[in-house]
Amino acid sequence: MKYEIFNAGRVALQSGITLPDCCVAYVTHGRLNAAKDNVVVFPSRYAGTHADQTYLIGPGKALDPEKYFIICINMLGSGLSSSPSNTARPLSGPDFPLVTQYDNVVLQERLLREVFGVTQIKLVCGWSMGGQQAFQWASLFPDRVAAMACFCGQGTTTPHTHVFLEGVKQGIITDPDWRGGYYETPPYKGLMAKGRIWAGWALSQEWYRAKMWEKQGFATLEDYLKGNWDGIYFNRDANDMLSLIATWQACDLANNQLYNGDANAAYAAIKARAIILPGRTDLYFPVADNAAEVAMMPNAEVRVIDSIWGHYAGGGRVAEDTAVIDAALKDLLA
Amino acid sequence: MKYEIFNAGRVALQSGITLPDCCVAYVTHGRLNAAKDNVVVFPSRYAGTHADQTYLIGPGKALDPEKYFIICINMLGSGLSSSPSNTARPLSGPDFPLVTQYDNVVLQERLLREVFGVTQIKLVCGWSMGGQQAFQWASLFPDRVAAMACFCGQGTTTPHTHVFLEGVKQGIITDPDWRGGYYETPPYKGLMAKGRIWAGWALSQEWYRAKMWEKQGFATLEDYLKGNWDGIYFNRDANDMLSLIATWQACDLANNQLYNGDANAAYAAIKARAIILPGRTDLYFPVADNAAEVAMMPNAEVRVIDSIWGHYAGGGRVAEDTAVIDAALKDLLA
Repeated sequence: MKYEIFNAGRVALQSGITLPDCCVAYVTHGRLNAAKDNVVVFPSRYAGTHADQTYLIGPGKALDPEKYFIICINMLGSGLSSSPSNTARPLSGPDFPLVTQYDNVVLQERLLREVFGVTQIKLVCGWSMGGQQAFQWASLFPDRVAAMACFCGQGTTTPHTHVFLEGVKQGIITDPDWRGGYYETPPYKGLMAKGRIWAGWALSQEWYRAKMWEKQGFATLEDYLKGNWDGIYFNRDANDMLSLIATWQACDLANNQLYNGDANAAYAAIKARAIILPGRTDLYFPVADNAAEVAMMPNAEVRVIDSIWGHYAGGGRVAEDTAVIDAALKDLLA
Repeated sequence: MKYEIFNAGRVALQSGITLPDCCVAYVTHGRLNAAKDNVVVFPSRYAGTHADQTYLIGPGKALDPEKYFIICINMLGSGLSSSPSNTARPLSGPDFPLVTQYDNVVLQERLLREVFGVTQIKLVCGWSMGGQQAFQWASLFPDRVAAMACFCGQGTTTPHTHVFLEGVKQGIITDPDWRGGYYETPPYKGLMAKGRIWAGWALSQEWYRAKMWEKQGFATLEDYLKGNWDGIYFNRDANDMLSLIATWQACDLANNQLYNGDANAAYAAIKARAIILPGRTDLYFPVADNAAEVAMMPNAEVRVIDSIWGHYAGGGRVAEDTAVIDAALKDLLA
């Protein structure tokens, strides 16, 4: 996997702990124009990297590299940027500090400014945890972000999402091979449990009712669970996954020195034209939660992705759903 | 806990395994009249017993012991009827055979007939797995069941429910103290994980959004998870829980020699007047799934319980929700 690294040096995180050699991994598509006003920021999702984001990038798509300078940035914890799995002791593994989306976005702002001299963002967008970062960008830098889109995500983690994440976390931490994070070999049993726990959350009741796994080439439901879910996290580091879950759970648009816990102020500050795209059947991020966010934003709308693909409506699995997102991004870039 | 035992003797289960000393635990409320036509059957739910069912029984309620002979019957696997935890080796613990709801209802029919000489059922009703049994009764004995109600349940387990149950199961089986079911002391860590995994499923996103745990006397969300969920299964046997999950996953109204897998026939056979009451926000049993069942039934209707209490809308937690169920049962008994 080819990518660039921004060496951010010593970075004091919101948690009060400093990462001494903080790195941010990213890739770019297209070219930065002379005016430096064609920038699209597209941060990464949970358990994913920039490499998973090409479904929205390409000629003829909203994120067209012929027109825009698109930068896909990997979160801390992603395994490419500074993460439990690649940080030196004593901040490695389970000792890696809590990272917030505020931390990620502050780092991304530095990356854009220090590496590219970019301060104006034409669009920031993302799926799921990527969408959390889009919210953070628009709220922290209201005068510098012209447009934002969040698909199947929220600016602030709700209590139910917190609880569902507690549940999937149990898969890993119940496995004794996890050893409190000090494992030598991956806790495969725990990663398998986590995958199987996640299976019920990622896709909707309707998706399962329609036996959509058959269209994915699986003979039975158990075949799908074994073939798709049991091993889905085997190539991911368990502590990285737990770090990202902690980031997700801590996500709070107002938890910073700008807004001091005032959610209304944090959302109302967003000047960007915003389109928030919940999936109709997303079990993590219900439409009603996004609607409550949009009600606090001066220039935002909700566009529901009418999909049975649950949370995956935003993840590029289905052409129809991706077309809805692409159309929204085109509207925002028009 | 005071209850009666029906000794069913040798019982060949659908799985092909025989329980040599099969016992069914039950309690009755009210008196059987001379005509033996005032019988209400109210089977037990997951991880519960007859003792949890008093919320619908009492003077002035639909299930009025002054009028009806109400029999609350504990499923196999409940810990009171034959279960992994109380069966002799070699059928104890993890070696306990698979029990289906068909098995439970066939046993219940024997109990009513052999102990009480009862063959006509005025009403069968239940919550969740209890509702599964209500469906089985009405489908297996269409000429003997006058009315049925299922609240927050289904006659046949959907693929999504199967998957969510796979997830909660992981909590127990990932704990090495479970020892493949051959534990001497309870696998507390696994039971705790199971509780925490279940927390996201039992109650709705709306319930959590409204911070309803505060009304339950918990200071924070974590306080609620620790105080309500982490220990919720500590007094239940892990193998009993796994046995009930297996029963739940195997629930299929048509999987018997009467209907041979023909779902339409199994539902169409139900002559009972039926009211099916899904909770609007139940994450296990969506309204649409019940609607699909009712569409196959000749004399049934859907009445949605408009509650934010998710699956618990049917479990007696909230007076308003229980009133909706009680009213439906009164309609069925009128």
